[in-house]
Amino acid sequence: MSAQTARAPSPPSPILLREMQGSIAVLTLNRSQARNSLSEGLIAELHAALKQIHDDKSVRAVVIAANGPAFSAGHDVKELTARRTDADRGRAYFAQIMTACSAMMQAVVQLPKPVVAAVQGIATAAGCQLVASCDLAVASEAATFATPGVDIGLFCSTPMVALSRNVPRKQAMEMLLTGEPVSATRARELGLVNRVVAAGTERDAAIALAQKVALKSAYTIKLGKEAFYRQAEMSLADAYRYAAEVMTENMMARDAEEGIGAFIEKREPKWQDK
Amino acid sequence: MSAQTARAPSPPSPILLREMQGSIAVLTLNRSQARNSLSEGLIAELHAALKQIHDDKSVRAVVIAANGPAFSAGHDVKELTARRTDADRGRAYFAQIMTACSAMMQAVVQLPKPVVAAVQGIATAAGCQLVASCDLAVASEAATFATPGVDIGLFCSTPMVALSRNVPRKQAMEMLLTGEPVSATRARELGLVNRVVAAGTERDAAIALAQKVALKSAYTIKLGKEAFYRQAEMSLADAYRYAAEVMTENMMARDAEEGIGAFIEKREPKWQDK
Amino acid sequence: MSAQTARAPSPPSPILLREMQGSIAVLTLNRSQARNSLSEGLIAELHAALKQIHDDKSVRAVVIAANGPAFSAGHDVKELTARRTDADRGRAYFAQIMTACSAMMQAVVQLPKPVVAAVQGIATAAGCQLVASCDLAVASEAATFATPGVDIGLFCSTPMVALSRNVPRKQAMEMLLTGEPVSATRARELGLVNRVVAAGTERDAAIALAQKVALKSAYTIKLGKEAFYRQAEMSLADAYRYAAEVMTENMMARDAEEGIGAFIEKREPKWQDK
Repeated sequence: MSAQTARAPSPPSPILLREMQGSIAVLTLNRSQARNSLSEGLIAELHAALKQIHDDKSVRAVVIAANGPAFSAGHDVKELTARRTDADRGRAYFAQIMTACSAMMQAVVQLPKPVVAAVQGIATAAGCQLVASCDLAVASEAATFATPGVDIGLFCSTPMVALSRNVPRKQAMEMLLTGEPVSATRARELGLVNRVVAAGTERDAAIALAQKVALKSAYTIKLGKEAFYRQAEMSLADAYRYAAEVMTENMMARDAEEGIGAFIEKREPKWQDK
Repeated sequence: MSAQTARAPSPPSPILLREMQGSIAVLTLNRSQARNSLSEGLIAELHAALKQIHDDKSVRAVVIAANGPAFSAGHDVKELTARRTDADRGRAYFAQIMTACSAMMQAVVQLPKPVVAAVQGIATAAGCQLVASCDLAVASEAATFATPGVDIGLFCSTPMVALSRNVPRKQAMEMLLTGEPVSATRARELGLVNRVVAAGTERDAAIALAQKVALKSAYTIKLGKEAFYRQAEMSLADAYRYAAEVMTENMMARDAEEGIGAFIEKREPKWQDK
Repeated sequence: MSAQTARAPSPPSPILLREMQGSIAVLTLNRSQARNSLSEGLIAELHAALKQIHDDKSVRAVVIAANGPAFSAGHDVKELTARRTDADRGRAYFAQIMTACSAMMQAVVQLPKPVVAAVQGIATAAGCQLVASCDLAVASEAATFATPGVDIGLFCSTPMVALSRNVPRKQAMEMLLTGEPVSATRARELGLVNRVVAAGTERDAAIALAQKVALKSAYTIKLGKEAFYRQAEMSLADAYRYAAEVMTENMMARDAEEGIGAFIEKREPKWQDK
């Protein structure tokens, strides 16, 4: 006990943890006392981590997980509210946060590596948006999903950009208009998550899924992920013109030559790292 | 009996009934002898009711229901056929009806209040389109949905605009090409309805769902519903730019300040009516 | 035995079989020794058959089926690989094949008659794309679907154009990133196929489904199919403007007049053939 008295105050624990599991970067939201709400600081840390990972060849895939009972409760409304005393009643700050948060969500989409959400608890508002923004999502059977901004007079408008690109129109509208949660099982039916697993196993399951993709050619995944989101916004004719070019480029790459050669020779391919 | 003899002939019963259930406007299709087909008159009455409700602050949400065994059989083909004797074989009239019907369907989408369909029976062609155009839909387990225009040589082209924005491509195509009905349960799997309830309870269930949304801030619902349909037609980057602006505007509004304050103070919010 | 000795060598069996079943053209992929991979020759034969059928009034609908254990394994990678010795390492050839294959897939979409896939076995990569490109698909309960290009370093970029227009985003991404197969039952849940039937009955079931559509007015199906894919790429307002014009044109056509007349008179319609 005297030893404790003598100890210097421990540094505040980081709001975003980062560890490597093999070639998988696991980013863990670590503001559990604030239900992992996406404060200005946490948005910035997530965005910075994604930027760093963008060009880090040792990282093949990313898992976004969370500590505590909630995955993420969305924006930090206390932090937002504190700025209502600004001269402009907070307008400039709110615009800055919404823009920063949207940029971070788009950085997930633009990352040239797969991103898998590991959802252990409730994911609401921008927390639900973060799940929807990931390429893939694994949920605990105990997880729930909601866009309940409507209950506090703040419609989940930025979350719905991601949600409505995952979930059919009327079902997205029901979540947005009623604010009611959907279970993990229902979220899978709706397209919001890929897999539902036993509570407590979602992190390992997400890492295992990420690992499966990480064993593929990094070049091929990068090319394909980018092409997926780009062609999704094109007409059919434009999408085919673009995708045919991507396929041709892909065929010329060393990893396709190696992969196809290995397939024909019935051996394991050896991917290039760059 | 003599009294009856003396009575003036009763006025024709209105083709669209309107009643308030609390703050919910319930519009009931009342041409059951014509399977609630969307005659020129009924399209006009529905559109007029939606226009009136648009700015009526006492109405917080709308339910569209129907009397009789059918929800709606779509266009009134007898009325259309009668115009084949026009000098232009009906062309101008058909164009006018299709344009008027499309405008009414879009008025449902553009209404700044949630619209919930209560489907008690068969909803076909433009009747199915009306369900698809609503923000939410509750169906009796006895309800069925079809786009059978193909069976009378008139492809359900305007209905498919709404249908294909609710239902996946191949499943919409199956309905359109075969004309075959789908059950309420299947319609829910396909995304066309939100909830399936016991026959006879769909109207109350739709009102209850509308009521749930009606308790939210009218300002927030209006802002969010408009933003939902607008961002759905944008690229991801444009949608985020737009939604971030909407969120900022929303944060500046009185109802968000009140709602977030109430949330932080753990009390019920008091929404503004205007 | 002497007769056999005397016989001339039998001609190579055609890689695409074509037969009529009533008014249904059944195209059967017949390279089962190569798992029906879409070689340059097979792509060309499929495209040529579709072009011929385009204006052949005796054909009311098309079924695309396959012989052997696989529906189609996608591109013929041995054929592609052989061109790596070209002066440009194959680039021009790869671009030509990808463009030719995309054009053939779009010819399925643009064909003014319904096209139904009959999937008896594994449909991978461009084979999965062919299923996704059809208007409707019937699968054996033994069929599986995958986009495993990622396993050979060649992301299924052209297949994903069709796949992502059938299947929700995260589920398409899972297929593309992991390369793992999905069962016929799961493919139906995802929207990739319309019906799952007992193994061995998929061909007859697809013909029966095509036959159902073939009994409708050819004019109406042509008009509606084209309008479906065109409006799918428009904004809601543009789609309604366009679809209202299509409906008006449709009303003026002989088959709509006949079909509506027959409906009112409670008799069978007699469609025009042209």
